[in-house]
Amino acid sequence: MTTDLTTRSGPEGTAARRTSADLLRRVEDRLRSFLSAERQEWAEVNERAVVAIDALSELTASGGKRIRPAFCIAGYLAAGGDPDDPGIVEAAAALEMLHISALIHDDVLDDSDTRRGLPTVHAKHTALHADRGWQGESRRFGEGVALLVGDLALVYSGELMSRAPRTALAEWNKLRSEVMIGQYMDVAAAAEFSVDPELSRWIALIKSGRYTIHRPLVVGASAAGHRELAAAFTEYGEAVGEAFQLRDDLLDAFGDSADTGKPAGLDFTQHKMTLLLGWAMQRDAHIHRLITEPGHTPDEVRRRLVDTGVPDDVEQHIAGLVERGCKAIADAPVPQAWRDELTAMAHRVAYRKA
Amino acid sequence: MTTDLTTRSGPEGTAARRTSADLLRRVEDRLRSFLSAERQEWAEVNERAVVAIDALSELTASGGKRIRPAFCIAGYLAAGGDPDDPGIVEAAAALEMLHISALIHDDVLDDSDTRRGLPTVHAKHTALHADRGWQGESRRFGEGVALLVGDLALVYSGELMSRAPRTALAEWNKLRSEVMIGQYMDVAAAAEFSVDPELSRWIALIKSGRYTIHRPLVVGASAAGHRELAAAFTEYGEAVGEAFQLRDDLLDAFGDSADTGKPAGLDFTQHKMTLLLGWAMQRDAHIHRLITEPGHTPDEVRRRLVDTGVPDDVEQHIAGLVERGCKAIADAPVPQAWRDELTAMAHRVAYRKA
Repeated sequence: MTTDLTTRSGPEGTAARRTSADLLRRVEDRLRSFLSAERQEWAEVNERAVVAIDALSELTASGGKRIRPAFCIAGYLAAGGDPDDPGIVEAAAALEMLHISALIHDDVLDDSDTRRGLPTVHAKHTALHADRGWQGESRRFGEGVALLVGDLALVYSGELMSRAPRTALAEWNKLRSEVMIGQYMDVAAAAEFSVDPELSRWIALIKSGRYTIHRPLVVGASAAGHRELAAAFTEYGEAVGEAFQLRDDLLDAFGDSADTGKPAGLDFTQHKMTLLLGWAMQRDAHIHRLITEPGHTPDEVRRRLVDTGVPDDVEQHIAGLVERGCKAIADAPVPQAWRDELTAMAHRVAYRKA
Repeated sequence: MTTDLTTRSGPEGTAARRTSADLLRRVEDRLRSFLSAERQEWAEVNERAVVAIDALSELTASGGKRIRPAFCIAGYLAAGGDPDDPGIVEAAAALEMLHISALIHDDVLDDSDTRRGLPTVHAKHTALHADRGWQGESRRFGEGVALLVGDLALVYSGELMSRAPRTALAEWNKLRSEVMIGQYMDVAAAAEFSVDPELSRWIALIKSGRYTIHRPLVVGASAAGHRELAAAFTEYGEAVGEAFQLRDDLLDAFGDSADTGKPAGLDFTQHKMTLLLGWAMQRDAHIHRLITEPGHTPDEVRRRLVDTGVPDDVEQHIAGLVERGCKAIADAPVPQAWRDELTAMAHRVAYRKA
């Protein structure tokens, strides 16, 4: 399906995709050059200082789908932004650096050991502390290092964004505070073990959908001076964002952990009330029991989800969301090539494999 | 001494102090109005979301010396900045909000239970989790909430600064990344139990002196469009900053915990290599042993410090630093009233009681 859509738009579509791919490459270069300049500056001051920066470089180089930079660039180009303005590269790089910060802190919150097949920052430094027999508690050290390295990435993201067009700042500020509040809500709901599908849906929406798709698009459109596209991008982004999050939950529950790079079914054991689980618990008392009462394994939950047809229902819902998103963009005042490209992007995030 | 200095400069000095005090009041108002607007916005969305914002409001309202806003405003006014430009209020409020973030995260790193006489964010939420019998580990929940609340303050500080004059951004960016790297170095040096007075001095310099005095001054001067004052402010700030840090160490080691609002001697037990301890360990093998070998109490260390005359020597060193700082400002191209005021401020931070 994706192939059809991406080839439909002819030469303009090809040009749009090329410009976008070129900007994404410049974002990669910018992330690298930014971190390497910081490293060089600090290495001259004190060689130990570079450990914090190297942790960010490793995570940046370890992969990642760069979804947020891609949507930011799409929003910018769809709004007619000048691809030669270096400000958009700074904005897109800032979104990725913010995400790196969020991943590092998130891994502490979830106590995850691996990320993209590598040890997480806190796991690595906890082990280092234990190996070396350093003073104090290894866990506090490892988590403390991850806290500070994540803070550094958060600060660097702000520094990158300070070189982006000022018109993008309002949306950027909203995006950042919203994701922190959303994260807090997620942690609180998991602890209280709230079984409130509406709350789960809302948390998923602000924490993941808006943060990943809708706001990056609007950051891009605002950087191009066309904040009025926010309405269409919001409609598109909220629908596609929910599809993205549901796919995430499906991959987490049923995916191969070699593909996602993190242990499968983690959200079950961490009692994270995902969109998928909220939905399943609401319609099936047995699922509710399996999750809320102790002694049940993720496998039991997984089997019951399959037996009651949840994955198929979710697939159907995802298809509806993608349709809604594409409809919103079909009516938006953007060039046809960008309507097509955003339609293709909706399919890519909703039907991704990892 | 302070009284003489602050009255010496006559009517101009009085006017300078009045303008500065007025701006500091506006910073308080801004912090309050910013947080209350955020609270109102989030309360309409979801009532639980306000917990994270309320944690920031409580910490902001619980006191604090506002040293960084004061130096930022002093740098701005000394450089001839317009006191009616709201941008300087945003910049000074941003520095305080950044500090609030640093305090919350620092309390996790140090596992401190109280701050300004109140439970720290992580201690409060750890206890809440345990009391309510919520899911998961209480410590991870409490520290996770503090991590996110600190992140939110860090994001809010950037939002405030985005409304300050753009000329202040370079110094602001430097200040933020430097304090994170300095914090990392501090945590690493404490874990490795590095007994390297040069390293301790350097960490104290970048983590505290520059962050507290020199860079806030330069943020202010840059906001006023006079970055060329950086040279004099750097000389002043590094000397007065070191005096500030040594006073901090003295208060921590010998002060009354009712005044500082945190448990006395914490830095001993956390094995933080303060400027004071680095110095004492270097000149006295017995101190070195008391600190590095297990089984010794802060009281033993404290007694030995007193017996070997360390506090008096440090007092003498502080006096020299204050003199050096005041000399740097005496030659700076700023109005006499501001030379006098900065001289008075140097004495206030170097000889503060808590």
